[in-house]
Amino acid sequence: MHSSHTEIATLGEFGLIDHLTEGIDLKNAETLKGVGDDCAVMDYNGTGKRVLVTTDMLMEGIHFDLIYTPLKHLGYKAAQVNFSDVYAMNGRPKQLLVSVAVGRRMSVEAMEELYAGLRLACDMHGVDLVGGDTTSSLTGLAISITCIGEADNEDIVYRNGAKDTDLICVSGNLGAAYMGLQIMEREKAVFESQQGKAGETAQPEFAGREYLLERLLKPEARRDIIENLAKAGIKPTAMMDISDGLSSELHHICRQSGTGCRIYEERIPLDYQTAVAAEEFNLNVTTCALNGGDDYELLFTVPLTQHEAVSQIDDVKVIGHITKPELGLALIARDGGEFELKAQGWNPLAEQTSSEQ
Amino acid sequence: MHSSHTEIATLGEFGLIDHLTEGIDLKNAETLKGVGDDCAVMDYNGTGKRVLVTTDMLMEGIHFDLIYTPLKHLGYKAAQVNFSDVYAMNGRPKQLLVSVAVGRRMSVEAMEELYAGLRLACDMHGVDLVGGDTTSSLTGLAISITCIGEADNEDIVYRNGAKDTDLICVSGNLGAAYMGLQIMEREKAVFESQQGKAGETAQPEFAGREYLLERLLKPEARRDIIENLAKAGIKPTAMMDISDGLSSELHHICRQSGTGCRIYEERIPLDYQTAVAAEEFNLNVTTCALNGGDDYELLFTVPLTQHEAVSQIDDVKVIGHITKPELGLALIARDGGEFELKAQGWNPLAEQTSSEQ
Repeated sequence: MHSSHTEIATLGEFGLIDHLTEGIDLKNAETLKGVGDDCAVMDYNGTGKRVLVTTDMLMEGIHFDLIYTPLKHLGYKAAQVNFSDVYAMNGRPKQLLVSVAVGRRMSVEAMEELYAGLRLACDMHGVDLVGGDTTSSLTGLAISITCIGEADNEDIVYRNGAKDTDLICVSGNLGAAYMGLQIMEREKAVFESQQGKAGETAQPEFAGREYLLERLLKPEARRDIIENLAKAGIKPTAMMDISDGLSSELHHICRQSGTGCRIYEERIPLDYQTAVAAEEFNLNVTTCALNGGDDYELLFTVPLTQHEAVSQIDDVKVIGHITKPELGLALIARDGGEFELKAQGWNPLAEQTSSEQ
Repeated sequence: MHSSHTEIATLGEFGLIDHLTEGIDLKNAETLKGVGDDCAVMDYNGTGKRVLVTTDMLMEGIHFDLIYTPLKHLGYKAAQVNFSDVYAMNGRPKQLLVSVAVGRRMSVEAMEELYAGLRLACDMHGVDLVGGDTTSSLTGLAISITCIGEADNEDIVYRNGAKDTDLICVSGNLGAAYMGLQIMEREKAVFESQQGKAGETAQPEFAGREYLLERLLKPEARRDIIENLAKAGIKPTAMMDISDGLSSELHHICRQSGTGCRIYEERIPLDYQTAVAAEEFNLNVTTCALNGGDDYELLFTVPLTQHEAVSQIDDVKVIGHITKPELGLALIARDGGEFELKAQGWNPLAEQTSSEQ
């Protein structure tokens, strides 16, 4: 039917979206921002309030493995991930729509678990579950979430506002969910290799790694950071949430802002458990922090003049600064060496990946 | 993991949604209507405008078969189906978000086709494509669409406003898409039975059935009906679009309005081609019109006093009237016999169905 066949992997997820949405003109006066940020932005008010919308799709076998993902956690995470996109615009999530396609083996009780997680997350963030679609799937579970939020126009933070000399900040710590995933994948492999064998079954080795598993299975959208920034009177110049890895997200901000950046390896926030697990798996912990996905922390930039104010906010760390575009995206290693930051974050459309990294 | 296992088929799609969303309290003042209508309704304005949101999920092998569904048509239909939900609230669609999960064999060119259909539908209805998500799938294609629209508060029509003696109206004609599906399924079976055999290959027999195939593959959301109702000064008392079959949709309106209804078999609008094809397939054409899905026509009720005005609207037919609830839902056959209307529309979660009906 088609005269040519270009593998999607050659474009990658963002290349594909850019390609497919190229040249779309916005027709409605209400539509202020279309494709290209954490949320679309609409003016349904005519005064100062804006409506924000974001959507995400989660596929079994790609985004989650039901072998080690309890359905309640899956629902909770699916909601949090979308709230995170609204917070990343400096907005407040208000409504959630959930579409679920389920295979034959899924029971009503299993769906109740999924919804219990969704509803818990909604309750915690004051969000109304207002609709969706429930249908069947020939194969695995598919979940699509749409979150609607609001923000005052003057509060909205896009990805494209970073300026030369701005400070680059991240909340929390990075790479922990990625290490949690490595642990789960290893335990799954151990479990599968024991299937059908007689004798004792090894119990999963999770002791001391609870934090990493929690980061993977139960992420928390950082409303607290948004609230604390507001209390401190700080409006970031650019912001997004870290879902595909710090390195990939920095590329988005720098590309859209027309800047470069320098970040310092020694400043990248890591949890102790992340470092221990990385050593155990013989992985470079900085690589995990830069390219592991599923952190759902906030990455933002603030003017240099706000250095003191931002440094006083709990759980926020300055990791570098924005530069002129010609300086590129640089990582300054502990030994002072300079490396180009590559956007090799998790790409679910890349040929080689069927799970993270 | 779960102590009990209840098959989802025992609840059905709507039973499942009711069950899972039971007892959800709306927390935000902006949320006016949650689960249970064609769209959720929000007040992001404080004056008279309302924001409408609807979402739909389409799964390969359940909602479409790529063997006979060109991707451009699939994109077009996916968008139209969501516009239809907004029109069914008497609103205007404004923004669309599209999430797509694709398997390995899908090329960039195939995705371009899908988006060409989405963009064409958006252009025709003045809708902005503002975002979405693109990811991979281990198996088939999954599409999730979210449409945002607007309406003045006093114009919105819910499903729950039908009153005793109101007239029941439908636009267009019914059952054609269902017959189109039967033709496509038959041609697919013929095609597959010829695979690998030598000799001549029969060409698909589509001549004279173009309209039925178009109804299946290229439905048009009925903006014209909404516009003509407005011009005629008619505001329906209840309205929804017919996606799962007239019978099923009448059950929704009567249940939510607390009424019964009587519709007349001889008044159900049918296209000539639908009747011919039903005879060819040895199917009862009324059953097809009542229970076939994918019509995307509008079903609405108007006060009896507007009989003359509504009768003058192009392509709208009065098929019966609303009754007191104790009279139930009745179909009056051509011979005067009375039958109970059963909601046996297309149920994608029912055990026996893997395609329509």
